Amino acid sequence: MLISEIGEVQLIKCLTEDVSLDPELVVTGIGDDAAAIKHPGDKLQLITKDILVEGIHFLREGISPWQLGRKSLAVNISDIAAMGGVPRHLLTAVAVPSDTECGLVKEIYRGIKGLCREHSINLIGGDTVRSPQGITISITLLGEVEPEQLLLRSGAREGHLLAVTGCLGASAAGLELLLQGYPFQQEWEEEVLKSHLEPPVRLKESRMLSESGAVTSMIDLSDGLQKDIGEICQASEVGARIFADKLPISDATRKACRYLKIHEVSLAFIGGEDYELLFSFPPERLSWMKDLWQRERGENLEVIGTIVSKEEGLKIVDSRGGEITLSRKGFVHF
Amino acid sequence: MLISEIGEVQLIKCLTEDVSLDPELVVTGIGDDAAAIKHPGDKLQLITKDILVEGIHFLREGISPWQLGRKSLAVNISDIAAMGGVPRHLLTAVAVPSDTECGLVKEIYRGIKGLCREHSINLIGGDTVRSPQGITISITLLGEVEPEQLLLRSGAREGHLLAVTGCLGASAAGLELLLQGYPFQQEWEEEVLKSHLEPPVRLKESRMLSESGAVTSMIDLSDGLQKDIGEICQASEVGARIFADKLPISDATRKACRYLKIHEVSLAFIGGEDYELLFSFPPERLSWMKDLWQRERGENLEVIGTIVSKEEGLKIVDSRGGEITLSRKGFVHF
Repeated sequence: MLISEIGEVQLIKCLTEDVSLDPELVVTGIGDDAAAIKHPGDKLQLITKDILVEGIHFLREGISPWQLGRKSLAVNISDIAAMGGVPRHLLTAVAVPSDTECGLVKEIYRGIKGLCREHSINLIGGDTVRSPQGITISITLLGEVEPEQLLLRSGAREGHLLAVTGCLGASAAGLELLLQGYPFQQEWEEEVLKSHLEPPVRLKESRMLSESGAVTSMIDLSDGLQKDIGEICQASEVGARIFADKLPISDATRKACRYLKIHEVSLAFIGGEDYELLFSFPPERLSWMKDLWQRERGENLEVIGTIVSKEEGLKIVDSRGGEITLSRKGFVHF
Repeated sequence: MLISEIGEVQLIKCLTEDVSLDPELVVTGIGDDAAAIKHPGDKLQLITKDILVEGIHFLREGISPWQLGRKSLAVNISDIAAMGGVPRHLLTAVAVPSDTECGLVKEIYRGIKGLCREHSINLIGGDTVRSPQGITISITLLGEVEPEQLLLRSGAREGHLLAVTGCLGASAAGLELLLQGYPFQQEWEEEVLKSHLEPPVRLKESRMLSESGAVTSMIDLSDGLQKDIGEICQASEVGARIFADKLPISDATRKACRYLKIHEVSLAFIGGEDYELLFSFPPERLSWMKDLWQRERGENLEVIGTIVSKEEGLKIVDSRGGEITLSRKGFVHF
């Protein structure tokens, strides 16, 4: 059945019929001129919004509608996580051509609503409209955080250490495989493709970090480590030194890099859409942080870099401390 | 200068450089992963979101970029006003082709920011991205309202009276003129065109009505009186009887209707995008409401209809109480 056949009212009804809302927080959700919610006055409210356009941010043949819906929300949850907060309320706006199959829009919403259920997010409003061509999705996500646990990009200071919540480069490897085709269908292919199409949601890690009181700055890795650490450097007015040999790279990513003939460190440093959290903390909290990581995640916390003065700028260095520059094929020593 | 020449970072900088935020409310605005704001815990928060697509909601040649920006925000302010609230914070997402002139995007933002300044709205975030073709604008507007002053669609009861905050049909007449061309450039043309391109912002009236304690339901007229009163009827489980000869229609709209050969009552009843507020109140508050209207607006409050039982449905009646149905050319008596 096409959207043009059932109409907007019927479509919205069908998309929202299984939405359940927290009556303690939501006074009125979908169905009035605006949503009305209660917000605890002692917490800060977090708000993030983005817009994803077919042909620019995704290709319809490269991602399933369910994955597209899930990912649209996941990347916004990542923004709330990067502030140390928890997501609470969601508004979605979707523009689709009227000759689109209803099933496709339902699948997008199934991806969105699944993640809502997983993280107790209330779908409280939005807009569903026609577009002349192509799908556009805009997400607005509201969250909250205790004022003392808000984590900004601007708190990194010289000497602070840098770490990340997971492996780097897998999503970029997945995207590259998608663009080139992926002939073998081996386990490593599946793994990097999944990293790209179903990015992680680091809410548990975010709360652990914001509640630790040790973290001084945080950002989520959407544009790639190089660009995103640059954002922390700019906001904190510092520089950073990244240790090339300490970047966490999964075996699957290494295998994908060998197949794609891309240097793995380049991919980990430059590739985007990891949606891991990058954070800084003072060196005196290192052993405490390592204990926390071991206890909560059963993993070794790797320090991937250190904050230096603004004058030193942003550098990536090899194991002997020599500065390197990266190209697609590998790195070039000065 | 094209957007492709200056890039996203420079564009955002240029669009947001003159944004000033209320430091009492905004902890962090544009520039981190999410915005962080303080919200007074004793008020409800209102949130509305929509998405406007070129070729569906507007034609680039029919509206100036400044008007497009202003209207995108105005129609969302109207949603907040319809709940009895005041707008506080705005997030905008704009998708534009990379061969778009920067000046055009700046003009859209000038329209948005002008209205922000007028109503003390903080522009706290958003997204600016490329699109393969056409402009898409998504607005998220946050507002607030005292819990006891929240006005829903669901409070209308049998016997309640209906009124609107201004004239009807002008915007639809303006749209019709735009589509047909408007050869005379007379005063009445300018007036109805302006109603369509620069819709009213009824915040003052909204506050007056929500603070009056007399209003039982309210909605903003975006889809036309017929459809929007239908929303109140559905939410309140009632019917309504609209008095055709009491619908407020401006002289300019009457002149436009004569030129366009459309019946003015049809236009006022069916035409969309008036962005006036439609509200109900109990009959015992009528003289009080009339006094309020006279005192605050220097105008006579006209009762345009009455709420009846659900079984009676929605009807429009002539001065003798006879039911009429409307067509483009006029009305047909049963």
